[in-house]
Amino acid sequence: MPQLRIALAQINATVGDLAGNAQLHVDWAKKAAEAGAHVVVFPEMSLTGYPVEDLTLRKTFAQASCQAVDDLARRLDEAGCGGLLVYAGYLDNDEVGPRDAAVALYGGEVVGRQFKHHLPNYGVFDEHRYFKPGQTLDVVRLHGLDIGMVICEDIWQEGGPVTALGEAGVDLVVAPNASPYERSKDDIRLPLVARRAAEARAPLVYTNLVGGQDDLVFDGDSIVVGADGALLARAPQFVEHLLVVDLDLPAGGHSSEGSFEGLEVRRRVLSSEPVPAYEPVPAPVSEPLSDEAEVWSALVVGLRDYVQKNGFRSVTFGFSGGIDSALTAALAVDALGPDAVYGVSMPSAYSSSHSREDAAELARRLGCHFRTESVEDMVRVYVDQLNLTGLAEENIQARVRGMLLMALSNQDGHLVLATGNKTELAVGYSTIYGDAVGGFAPIKDVFKTHVWELARWRNAEAEKRGEVPPIPENSITKPPSAELRPGQLDTDSLPDYPLLDDILDDYVEGDRGYADLLAAGFDAETIDRVIRMVDRAEYKRRQYPVGTKITFKAFGRDRRLPITNGWREGDQR
Amino acid sequence: MPQLRIALAQINATVGDLAGNAQLHVDWAKKAAEAGAHVVVFPEMSLTGYPVEDLTLRKTFAQASCQAVDDLARRLDEAGCGGLLVYAGYLDNDEVGPRDAAVALYGGEVVGRQFKHHLPNYGVFDEHRYFKPGQTLDVVRLHGLDIGMVICEDIWQEGGPVTALGEAGVDLVVAPNASPYERSKDDIRLPLVARRAAEARAPLVYTNLVGGQDDLVFDGDSIVVGADGALLARAPQFVEHLLVVDLDLPAGGHSSEGSFEGLEVRRRVLSSEPVPAYEPVPAPVSEPLSDEAEVWSALVVGLRDYVQKNGFRSVTFGFSGGIDSALTAALAVDALGPDAVYGVSMPSAYSSSHSREDAAELARRLGCHFRTESVEDMVRVYVDQLNLTGLAEENIQARVRGMLLMALSNQDGHLVLATGNKTELAVGYSTIYGDAVGGFAPIKDVFKTHVWELARWRNAEAEKRGEVPPIPENSITKPPSAELRPGQLDTDSLPDYPLLDDILDDYVEGDRGYADLLAAGFDAETIDRVIRMVDRAEYKRRQYPVGTKITFKAFGRDRRLPITNGWREGDQR
Repeated sequence: MPQLRIALAQINATVGDLAGNAQLHVDWAKKAAEAGAHVVVFPEMSLTGYPVEDLTLRKTFAQASCQAVDDLARRLDEAGCGGLLVYAGYLDNDEVGPRDAAVALYGGEVVGRQFKHHLPNYGVFDEHRYFKPGQTLDVVRLHGLDIGMVICEDIWQEGGPVTALGEAGVDLVVAPNASPYERSKDDIRLPLVARRAAEARAPLVYTNLVGGQDDLVFDGDSIVVGADGALLARAPQFVEHLLVVDLDLPAGGHSSEGSFEGLEVRRRVLSSEPVPAYEPVPAPVSEPLSDEAEVWSALVVGLRDYVQKNGFRSVTFGFSGGIDSALTAALAVDALGPDAVYGVSMPSAYSSSHSREDAAELARRLGCHFRTESVEDMVRVYVDQLNLTGLAEENIQARVRGMLLMALSNQDGHLVLATGNKTELAVGYSTIYGDAVGGFAPIKDVFKTHVWELARWRNAEAEKRGEVPPIPENSITKPPSAELRPGQLDTDSLPDYPLLDDILDDYVEGDRGYADLLAAGFDAETIDRVIRMVDRAEYKRRQYPVGTKITFKAFGRDRRLPITNGWREGDQR
Repeated sequence: MPQLRIALAQINATVGDLAGNAQLHVDWAKKAAEAGAHVVVFPEMSLTGYPVEDLTLRKTFAQASCQAVDDLARRLDEAGCGGLLVYAGYLDNDEVGPRDAAVALYGGEVVGRQFKHHLPNYGVFDEHRYFKPGQTLDVVRLHGLDIGMVICEDIWQEGGPVTALGEAGVDLVVAPNASPYERSKDDIRLPLVARRAAEARAPLVYTNLVGGQDDLVFDGDSIVVGADGALLARAPQFVEHLLVVDLDLPAGGHSSEGSFEGLEVRRRVLSSEPVPAYEPVPAPVSEPLSDEAEVWSALVVGLRDYVQKNGFRSVTFGFSGGIDSALTAALAVDALGPDAVYGVSMPSAYSSSHSREDAAELARRLGCHFRTESVEDMVRVYVDQLNLTGLAEENIQARVRGMLLMALSNQDGHLVLATGNKTELAVGYSTIYGDAVGGFAPIKDVFKTHVWELARWRNAEAEKRGEVPPIPENSITKPPSAELRPGQLDTDSLPDYPLLDDILDDYVEGDRGYADLLAAGFDAETIDRVIRMVDRAEYKRRQYPVGTKITFKAFGRDRRLPITNGWREGDQR
C-alpha cells in the first residue's frame, strides 16, 4: 500500500498579523520538509488567525489575505518546499461574499481551494454574520493517494462534506480547525473525529490552532484517527508542535466527480506514483493532560498571549494576601516569568496584618517584584471631602486601589490584571472601577471553589518537583474577605462558596430555571437571593476586562444578555 | 367595497418585562377598541421586547412568553376587546427551536400564528444565533377581508413571504416591526414598504416599536401604504402613539391555500360580512422630523429609557465648561427634567477660570443641581506619593474625577453619565476609568463636529420658542481642551476636528481603506496618524459604557473587532 508522511503544524497564529503568520507557515513547512513529510496541514484560517470578527468585512483585509496566499505559495517554493503539499487557511472574498477558506499549495501554485460549508453561529461563533458557505470539495491525488479536505465545523455535522467525500471516494481527509478550548472538550472531540473517519472511510487528520486570542484559547490537541476510528497520533496540548505521522494506505484510485450530498466534488492529480517504500517512524501519542493541568495551561497560555500579542512586557496587580490575587500571581509567573510580575500591596486602615504578611510571603515565594503603597491618605481625602459612608466608603477604597494601579501602569508601562473570579462576577460581588480595573482578567472564568482547587493543585505540583509551593498556605485556608470594613467576611454578603458555586453551575452553566433549582434541592430563599444577584450584575460583567474562557458559559462571548432587562427568573412562579 | 378601521399601536416595550408589556397591550387595545378599530397591530416581539438576546435560549423565558400570549388572549376578551383582531409579537419555542413569532388574537383565542422567515444577521442583528425560520403564512378573513402577516425583515427581502401573499391573494398585509433608528433610515423605509405593498397587491400596515433598549433606540415612524405605494398615514417619531386609519378595500374573496414561494399559506375565516358602511376618519400623516430634531429625539429617548428602565431617577456627571458636557446636560434635562440632573464642577490646578464660569452658567440656564468639588487635594496625594509625571499625572486627574462621580453615585443613587463623543472614542482620546466612567454615554455615537451642530440647533430651537438657549455660547465657540496640563488644547494631539471627522467618516462609517482615503485627497501622514489611533483604541472602546446608536457604524453592536489584532490598515501598501 502507498505510504505517506503527514505533518500537522499546530501553530500559534495572531489575528490580523498576515506577515507574522505567513512567516510561521514558511518556518513550519520547512520543518515538515526536513522531517521528510509529504503533506503538512495548518489550522483553519491559519494565515489570518481566528476569529477575525468584523475584519472579515473590511475589503482591504480580505484582499491582503488573498494576496498572502499567493505570496506564500511562491515563498514556499523558493524555500524548497514546492514538493510538499501544504494546506493553509485564510479569508477569501469572492463575488458571493467573504469565505472561511483553505488552500492546498504545491509547486508554487494553488492546487485546491475550498470554502467552509457549515457555519457555526452559537456559543462563541458568529459565522453567519461573516461568511457565505462553500459548495465544492477539492480532492487532490498525491503519490497515488486521494486527499480530501473539510474545514472545522464541517466535521461537527452529521452528513454533509464528510459523507460526500466518503461517497465520492478518498484515501485520506485533512481537516484544518480553530476549535477553542473548553474544559473536557477532548472527551467530545476524539469520538467525533472517529465517527467522521468512519463516514469518510478514510483516516482523518485534524490540525487545531494553539494559543490565546482575547478571551479564547486554542488547545491544539491535534490528532490523526484511522478509518477504523483508532487514535493513531496526538499532539501535546497548549504548545506549538509539529506532529509527524506515517500512514500506509490502500490507494482507492477514486475518480468520481460531480455532485454528492449537494456538494460538487472536483479532482486534480499532482502525482500518481507512490513514494518508494521507506521505514516509517513511530507515531507519537501524547497523553492528554489531567483536568487541573489542562485548565492551568489554558489560563497560562491565555494570559501570556494576551499580554505578549498586545505588546506588553510586564503586568501589575494588587497582592491582597487573598487567594484570588495569589492564584493570579502564580499564573502570571508561570506565563511571563517572575521578572515580568509587579505585585503591589495596597493596605488600607481595614487591612489585617496577616493580609500584608501573606502578600509579602507570596512575592518572596514567586521571586517577583513587590512594593507596598498605602492607600490610607488617598482614601481619607475622598471620605473627608465628600463625607462618604457605607457602601460609598467601601467602594472608594477599592477604586483608589484601581487608580493607583493604573497610575503605575501609565508610569511604568505594565498591563494591569484584574484578579476577580467567576463567582464574584456572577453575583456582582466586585467594585466597578475598583477590583474590576485591568486590561485582562486571568481567572474571570474560574469559580471560587475551583480557584482553591487550582491553588492546591499548583502547590502539590511544585512539591512533586521539589520546588517551593508558590501560594502561601494561609491564603488558601483563611476565610475570604474584601477587607473594606472592620471584620468583613464574604459570607456576610454571600452564601458559602461551595453552595453558591453549585447554584451558579446550575443557573449559569446549565441555564436551569427556578423550578429546576428547587427540584435539585436548593432552598427557595437562597435560590431567590442568588439568581437576583446574577440577573442584576449584567452591567458590571459587561464592564469587566476580557479573560480566558474555560467553560461553556464564560462571561464574555458565550452569554449575551441585555442590560436593560425586566425579566426575573422565578417571578412567574 | 368593505371598510376596515386599522389601528397601529406604536408602543414602548421593555425587554423581558412580560407583565408590563402585556399590560401595555391591554391598555392600547382598549384605546383601539374605543377608537372603533377592527384590527390593532402591535410591533414585532411586542410582548417580550426586542432584542431579547440570550434570554431567547432560556427555556423558562420562552415558556413564560408563550403563557403570556394565552393570558393576553383571555385578558383582551375579558376587557371587552374580543371582537378586535389583535396582532402581537412574542418569543415562541417549539420542537424545532426558538422563534421570532406573532399571533392574531380574536375572541379570546389564537386565530393565527406565524414565525419570522428571514432572519437578519448583520449590523446589530444576530437572529441566526437565536431563531429558526418559519415556513407558514396565516391569512385570516375579518369582515370579508383577507389579512396576511409578515414580520420585520421579511419585508426587507426581495421575494419570499410578501411575494407569496401576493400570489396566494390577500386584501391587506400587516407587518409588526422592531426596526432600530439610524440617521435618515426613513428615506429607505418608505420606498421599501411601498415596493412590498405593490408585490402584495394590497395595502401594507407597518407598525414599529418605539423607545430605547440599551444602545438601540426605536423611532416608531409607523406607516400605512396603499397597494399603489402611496403613503396613507404616518405616526409621529419617538413617542408612543395609536395611529388609526380607515381603509376601503376591494374584497378579493381569495381562497388559494398551499405552497407559494416555498411557504405554506393557510386560511381561516373569522367573519365574512363586511361592516356596515360608516363615515371614515381622515388618516393623519405626521411630518417627519428634521435631521437634527430626529437625532435630538433619538438621543433624548435613548437616554431617558436607559435611565428609567434600569430603575434610576437621577443622573450625575462632570460639568467641565466644555461642549460635550454642556450638550449632555441639555439632553439630560430634556430627557429627565432639571431636578433629575446633578452637575458637578471638579476643577483642578489646570482648570481655567472660564471653565468654571461656563459650567456654572450652564447649570443656571438649565436650572439643574450643581456643586463644585475641587480635585486638587486628591490629585496631590497620588502625584506626591507615586511621583507621577507626564501622562500618568494627566490621567490621574481624569480618574480622580471619575471616582469622585462614582462616590456621589454610591452615596446619592444617581446614574453616572459619560460625556465622551464619537470622535474621541474613535481615536482613543479619552482616559479609561476617567472621563470614560459611567453607566451610559448619551453622545457616544455623535462625532465632535456634529456635537457643535446639535448645540447650535438646540439653542436656536430655544430661541424660536422664546426660551433661554441652554448652552452657553462660550462653550460652543472656545477651542476644545481637556485641561489636564497648562495651556493644553485638543489640537496638540489631534488634527482639526472637521478634518478628523471627515477621515473618520470615511474610515469608520464607510469602512474605506488606506488607498481610498488617499484617493479622497487626504494627506498620507494624517491618514496614517488617524487610522493608527483608531486601530489602537479598540480596547478603550470596549470598556466604554453603552450609548445610543444613531449611525450605521456605532461603536457597540455594529463594529466588532478583536482587541488582539495584528492588522494595521495601510501597512501592506
